[in-house]
Amino acid sequence: MILSSKILNNAVEAVAALPGIGKKTALRIVLHLINGNMGTGENLANKLLELKNIKFCKICNNISDDDICDICRSSSRDQNTICIVENIRDLIAIENTQQYNGLYHVLGGLISPLDGISPEDLHIQDMIGRLKDNEDISELIMALSPTVEGETTIYYLTNMVPGNIKISLISRGISFGGELEYADEFTLGRSILTRIPYNSEIK
Amino acid sequence: MILSSKILNNAVEAVAALPGIGKKTALRIVLHLINGNMGTGENLANKLLELKNIKFCKICNNISDDDICDICRSSSRDQNTICIVENIRDLIAIENTQQYNGLYHVLGGLISPLDGISPEDLHIQDMIGRLKDNEDISELIMALSPTVEGETTIYYLTNMVPGNIKISLISRGISFGGELEYADEFTLGRSILTRIPYNSEIK
Repeated sequence: MILSSKILNNAVEAVAALPGIGKKTALRIVLHLINGNMGTGENLANKLLELKNIKFCKICNNISDDDICDICRSSSRDQNTICIVENIRDLIAIENTQQYNGLYHVLGGLISPLDGISPEDLHIQDMIGRLKDNEDISELIMALSPTVEGETTIYYLTNMVPGNIKISLISRGISFGGELEYADEFTLGRSILTRIPYNSEIK
Repeated sequence: MILSSKILNNAVEAVAALPGIGKKTALRIVLHLINGNMGTGENLANKLLELKNIKFCKICNNISDDDICDICRSSSRDQNTICIVENIRDLIAIENTQQYNGLYHVLGGLISPLDGISPEDLHIQDMIGRLKDNEDISELIMALSPTVEGETTIYYLTNMVPGNIKISLISRGISFGGELEYADEFTLGRSILTRIPYNSEIK
């Protein structure tokens, strides 16, 4: 794409560096900002710069404005249940169902030998630590994508967890190979409510 | 969408304010920036802030880093032809064809009584001024969309332009790769009426 203005060209390239945005869309966005929406662009710039102040919760690894996230600090949430999720997108997706009132633990990925991701690369030790520090925890919900990596991670985790803690899976209303974050809220919400004990699943 | 972090929420809302980007895409983009791509976000923020330095060419209204744009300043471009376009996106689209080496004039819209856009709202007087100031100009190419508004604008402009200046339209017809049977009747009919000798086509 030939753009005679360097300022324009730089802005288009910076927008096109975002995931899922091509050069034509980037150009459309930047021209929109230039044509009387400069306030939108400045606001966006400032909000993006503020992102460097973001923290990760020291307990569950959720995104947070403080050292401990709102969910971990909340006294109104069920302190006996931890929902294990792959990433923050999945945590947000589950929060949006408004069907779950317990705590979370963000693993930061799934075990995947093919991609060179081993248990040490994930927040698994933190999780075991949480179970040791807090005897109130009685249930772990494995809300991981039903893929090979997800199954591997679930298998690994169940072997690490003390036997007195109940382990459950979100029910498989989610199609195999599907991504959690794109599931509709009803299906995802139901799959939390109808979670089943790990060993009882009919395969 | 429920986001416990205010910083995250602000950034997502600012990204979602861009045209064509929904909340889920915005969240994906912001989380991508947070997860180890903070440089991309800071670069984007800086490039967006620089946009306020952008100018519009005092001659043709193209986007420019200076008072006069590169195209208007270039001595290697054909000074006898002006291509009239609706907006800067159309100018960029024509530049990208690398088939045109003349000058441009950006109208900033099309005459549309229904939308309350009258000739005074567009850069039409500037254009007439350019023709008076520069007697070298011998041809105006109307590269406007073949819509009611485009036709109205072309009709209005042709009545304003001195009779010694040639006025041409970009040819309307079947696009390359297009299937005849799916073309609308008006386009197909026009392409028959304005047929051109076989050997005259520039390939």
